[in-house]
Amino acid sequence: MLKASESANIAILGASGYTGAELVRLLNGHPLARITALTADRRAGAELSDVFPHLSLKDLPRLTRIEDVNWSEIDFCFCALPHGTTQEVVAGLPETLRLIDLSADFRLRDPDLYAKWYGHAHYAPGLQKTAVYGLSEIARSQIREARLVANPGCYPTSVFLPLIPLLRAGLVEPEGIIIDAKSGVSGAGRAAKEATLFAEVTEGVHPYGVASHRHLPEIEQELSLAGGQDITVNFTPHLMPMVRGILSSIYVKLSSQVSVSEVRSCLEETYASEQFVSVLSEGHVPATRHVKGSNQCRIAVFEDRIKGRAILFSVLDNLVKGASGQAIQNMNLMLGFEEGLGLEQAPLFP
Amino acid sequence: MLKASESANIAILGASGYTGAELVRLLNGHPLARITALTADRRAGAELSDVFPHLSLKDLPRLTRIEDVNWSEIDFCFCALPHGTTQEVVAGLPETLRLIDLSADFRLRDPDLYAKWYGHAHYAPGLQKTAVYGLSEIARSQIREARLVANPGCYPTSVFLPLIPLLRAGLVEPEGIIIDAKSGVSGAGRAAKEATLFAEVTEGVHPYGVASHRHLPEIEQELSLAGGQDITVNFTPHLMPMVRGILSSIYVKLSSQVSVSEVRSCLEETYASEQFVSVLSEGHVPATRHVKGSNQCRIAVFEDRIKGRAILFSVLDNLVKGASGQAIQNMNLMLGFEEGLGLEQAPLFP
Amino acid sequence: MLKASESANIAILGASGYTGAELVRLLNGHPLARITALTADRRAGAELSDVFPHLSLKDLPRLTRIEDVNWSEIDFCFCALPHGTTQEVVAGLPETLRLIDLSADFRLRDPDLYAKWYGHAHYAPGLQKTAVYGLSEIARSQIREARLVANPGCYPTSVFLPLIPLLRAGLVEPEGIIIDAKSGVSGAGRAAKEATLFAEVTEGVHPYGVASHRHLPEIEQELSLAGGQDITVNFTPHLMPMVRGILSSIYVKLSSQVSVSEVRSCLEETYASEQFVSVLSEGHVPATRHVKGSNQCRIAVFEDRIKGRAILFSVLDNLVKGASGQAIQNMNLMLGFEEGLGLEQAPLFP
Amino acid sequence: MLKASESANIAILGASGYTGAELVRLLNGHPLARITALTADRRAGAELSDVFPHLSLKDLPRLTRIEDVNWSEIDFCFCALPHGTTQEVVAGLPETLRLIDLSADFRLRDPDLYAKWYGHAHYAPGLQKTAVYGLSEIARSQIREARLVANPGCYPTSVFLPLIPLLRAGLVEPEGIIIDAKSGVSGAGRAAKEATLFAEVTEGVHPYGVASHRHLPEIEQELSLAGGQDITVNFTPHLMPMVRGILSSIYVKLSSQVSVSEVRSCLEETYASEQFVSVLSEGHVPATRHVKGSNQCRIAVFEDRIKGRAILFSVLDNLVKGASGQAIQNMNLMLGFEEGLGLEQAPLFP
Repeated sequence: MLKASESANIAILGASGYTGAELVRLLNGHPLARITALTADRRAGAELSDVFPHLSLKDLPRLTRIEDVNWSEIDFCFCALPHGTTQEVVAGLPETLRLIDLSADFRLRDPDLYAKWYGHAHYAPGLQKTAVYGLSEIARSQIREARLVANPGCYPTSVFLPLIPLLRAGLVEPEGIIIDAKSGVSGAGRAAKEATLFAEVTEGVHPYGVASHRHLPEIEQELSLAGGQDITVNFTPHLMPMVRGILSSIYVKLSSQVSVSEVRSCLEETYASEQFVSVLSEGHVPATRHVKGSNQCRIAVFEDRIKGRAILFSVLDNLVKGASGQAIQNMNLMLGFEEGLGLEQAPLFP
Repeated sequence: MLKASESANIAILGASGYTGAELVRLLNGHPLARITALTADRRAGAELSDVFPHLSLKDLPRLTRIEDVNWSEIDFCFCALPHGTTQEVVAGLPETLRLIDLSADFRLRDPDLYAKWYGHAHYAPGLQKTAVYGLSEIARSQIREARLVANPGCYPTSVFLPLIPLLRAGLVEPEGIIIDAKSGVSGAGRAAKEATLFAEVTEGVHPYGVASHRHLPEIEQELSLAGGQDITVNFTPHLMPMVRGILSSIYVKLSSQVSVSEVRSCLEETYASEQFVSVLSEGHVPATRHVKGSNQCRIAVFEDRIKGRAILFSVLDNLVKGASGQAIQNMNLMLGFEEGLGLEQAPLFP
Repeated sequence: MLKASESANIAILGASGYTGAELVRLLNGHPLARITALTADRRAGAELSDVFPHLSLKDLPRLTRIEDVNWSEIDFCFCALPHGTTQEVVAGLPETLRLIDLSADFRLRDPDLYAKWYGHAHYAPGLQKTAVYGLSEIARSQIREARLVANPGCYPTSVFLPLIPLLRAGLVEPEGIIIDAKSGVSGAGRAAKEATLFAEVTEGVHPYGVASHRHLPEIEQELSLAGGQDITVNFTPHLMPMVRGILSSIYVKLSSQVSVSEVRSCLEETYASEQFVSVLSEGHVPATRHVKGSNQCRIAVFEDRIKGRAILFSVLDNLVKGASGQAIQNMNLMLGFEEGLGLEQAPLFP
Repeated sequence: MLKASESANIAILGASGYTGAELVRLLNGHPLARITALTADRRAGAELSDVFPHLSLKDLPRLTRIEDVNWSEIDFCFCALPHGTTQEVVAGLPETLRLIDLSADFRLRDPDLYAKWYGHAHYAPGLQKTAVYGLSEIARSQIREARLVANPGCYPTSVFLPLIPLLRAGLVEPEGIIIDAKSGVSGAGRAAKEATLFAEVTEGVHPYGVASHRHLPEIEQELSLAGGQDITVNFTPHLMPMVRGILSSIYVKLSSQVSVSEVRSCLEETYASEQFVSVLSEGHVPATRHVKGSNQCRIAVFEDRIKGRAILFSVLDNLVKGASGQAIQNMNLMLGFEEGLGLEQAPLFP
């Protein structure tokens, strides 16, 4: 078994998607990770650089099929497979293998809820029970011990980092939370679809998945846990003409007698010693472009003109803190590495 | 004086900005308008095509200074000057000249409110009293008779078209209205600023003017009139990496016993015979790119997951229905022309 | 048979692609055209607005299958079908029907050349012989008489308008012509492909189809005709992160004793009375954004620092002058309408 | 004096521009560099994060004025000041200080050439004589010994890496070289100008600086040196609607009897052991998005359809290999560090 600070041999299942590629980009700069296996069933035999020319990196293994991975040499595994296909794959992996799943498959704690939103019973309900919902800053100690971590969705991460501490502290009302979220197109993945063609996305914006987006149950599940009661939210995602980035604008009612500065203080204290989450000083607005390519999440708090209400903004890069970056952060926790290893890159701007 | 259906000689003051250019683009296709004077003080003497190469059109006059316009040959005037400079200019125009001002200068009915938001007393409070707030679909009969029309702002137009009929009908609560608005960059005009450079705007989004945007008093003024009580709203604009388009996502509480389908019906009836405002059928979301370059506004109504609440979406092109197109629509009303003349172009997509 | 100035009933085959949609957008503003049939086999039965929400226009027929068109009521037909499928469709249309094909199927005069580039024998070689290559400004009189017009490709149009007059006049050398062309993504159509996803196209440029693009034989065919000898060119297309627009930068050797101003004069004279082609004055560069949405082509001529050479630039909107606009211009010629009918819209900028 | 492998205290003059910010981003990940002074005269006293919110990094000094830098604690200096202002600043720096200038001020070896292109005599002609033109892969040994390195321009770097080895080897003709270059907007810097506003740049392309761009003398100077004779080129830059990236498409005549594969082999051999320059295998085209954020330059060689000619493509990130990345590479050479230190980041895609 791997000892902390020894380097780890990593397998990435599903390396031909954007989150897979992002894992490779980031792990390439991780001093204690060695990418040992990359799978992509339809491209097995190819080099990763055939699929992602920007990843013409030294010492990468060829793409293989999952069944051709030599598990005996793998210390840790990331699953970056499409939603729905992961459950069965994970069920077939060696039981001693620790892993992080980046799909939605293990995020819903209640198998009935999963069935309701995904239209079929969960294929691995036993495994589901053991999965830890991996919001690094919130569930650190459980993540450290987990065998299987369900990596949070990009939208949910942007919602939880500002809201969970406030709900736990009772500073905002659990009713009537409105989340107007804006996301870049990379969240839709690399599959060829008319709706994400350049000509269909550039120079325009629109809402989508209104009151029906699949991140909704995940959002309500974790907010309800934090708030100690069933919480129903308005979550309205919008597609932005950009590749990376999520901005969640969250409109909340303050609890009785609570001021906006108490809200800001709560978040400042919660994240005072965090490497990847920061709270902007009063009057400053966050921008997705200021976290692009990095594992940062930035939060701001504003007073609403409507009495007794506040506005929370949070930004992150959906492929990093919203996916592969947070996954690596979780791996670092699970393997006893320094939490920020491989994730210290400054954002890329302009 | 001009008789209906005779053609009109038009002056455009401030032709070197985006709204000025858009007036020229649209009037160029207007069968009863002849552009007779174009002013741009700093570019006086130049051709408009030196300033806007895409407007290399036949029969355009050269740019002049305002004081060099021969008013005796002008039937109608558009002011597309920067905010703050218009009041004095308009005060100096011939008293018989009918005109539409596209700036914010005459939009606030209360001079004290103007002074509060703009930091100085209004320079033409007498004129202000005579100005009609020119939301075409809502104030048609007043616009027809007006000498001076204050053309609505782009954000306000996108907010009023869905909200005013609902407030008038008492279908939504006047309290707690949350307007999360998204705008293209052209709304900021052509002045050179670091904040609107390509490298600062592309591939990212951010909120701005939170709880302090200058369209706020205009929005609250007209909503209060419609609702019959003082209304305070949350209006939170966001800058989008695109040139044209506004999407307002409006989160409202339904009045007691009111259903979402009543809300949709109210809007459908209000706009049933309108040429430029349409209500999408259930389940369809509007996109800014589907109205680009046109005078259209599209509205959609969705049920919120939170009981008793609804979501309204509206989209328009900020330079057309949000500025120059609505101004021409108003001119058509004022001159007794068919309301849609010059505005029938289909949107440009992709 | 249709008399000039009577209005015409139009069929558009292939209305669910970008060029089909653009035909509808433009014909909607054409005073003598009535869209009577729209086909889209896979979407038969739907409204066009289901496929293109921006085209929620009055009085459009539903989409049908080609075999369900009532040809007896059609005066004129546009084929906007994918390359390769058009030949057989056109062969099956009523022989008296005049039509314009926007695909590449009838552009190559030599069936052997077609077979070489497309990998199969032409399916309608007899029809091919009757087709007129429809570059409006160059082949006006033939177009007027044609039954079947092969509408030129977007790249070729941008190359021919500057080069054909110069080759005919012997002002530039037919050898060593280098065409570095830049195109927006809409040229690739609406089919869902990974290569044209927003995330794969934005914020970057690359060449493609180097020395192998299918517009090459078409370009060499017409240039050879103009130059009176076999001409081989370097044609190197590049994909731009934008939707519309082609810029061709053409590097040529001047014929002996010819000056750059003679070159400019030749083009100025050729296009002096043209409505849609203009030559910029010395020192001005054309920009694709200044012709967007319009049927304009703009040309500029520059001296090269290398002695005896010149640079030609041309810009157009690939969906308008490069496709649907030129097709309507050709229809106007064929039906005896004024050539610019329906095409007078000013460009959309910004 | 600094010993190799000790860490170095770095000053960056002009930290409020894009190249300054990019130096900070990259040096932040450099294990042997410590940013000790940052200057920005107009923002002296502010934090760098006030100017560039994405650079909210630990341990950065406040911005100061140049005259307030304590030079005794500085081991190495980068000048990222605007063109024209650097000469006098550098002349005033301690004589023992080694430095790299990222402006154009010290790139032209001949002061008369400088005067001709910049309109005034060089202010520090003595220093100019000592400057080494810092193309890392080509002038490595001179750079190691230099006190003052003139960092190459972004366009020139993209031109030299493919062309210099070929000219040195006599494989391409020095006459008639045509360089059609495409650049992102960040090359124009952060100064507020109408021409680089989002609304003026997005969704369109155009050439600029035709036959007159200031990188021309720099390009001809170094190519002439490599070719052993005076070389005049066609260099035609085009502005792309993107932030980062340069693509140079270079059209050359092969020397007599030379084949395209010899050309490719020459480049492959030249760069076989280089970390940052690679030659793509036959048939592959480079894309700027595949090097974004990295210090990579990628080169491809294609046969032209015109006999005896070839096409070279090169791509790089203008802010990295075209500016700050190459500057750090040069610093590594000058300080005896491993050449790639701080520059190993994989490109950011999508």
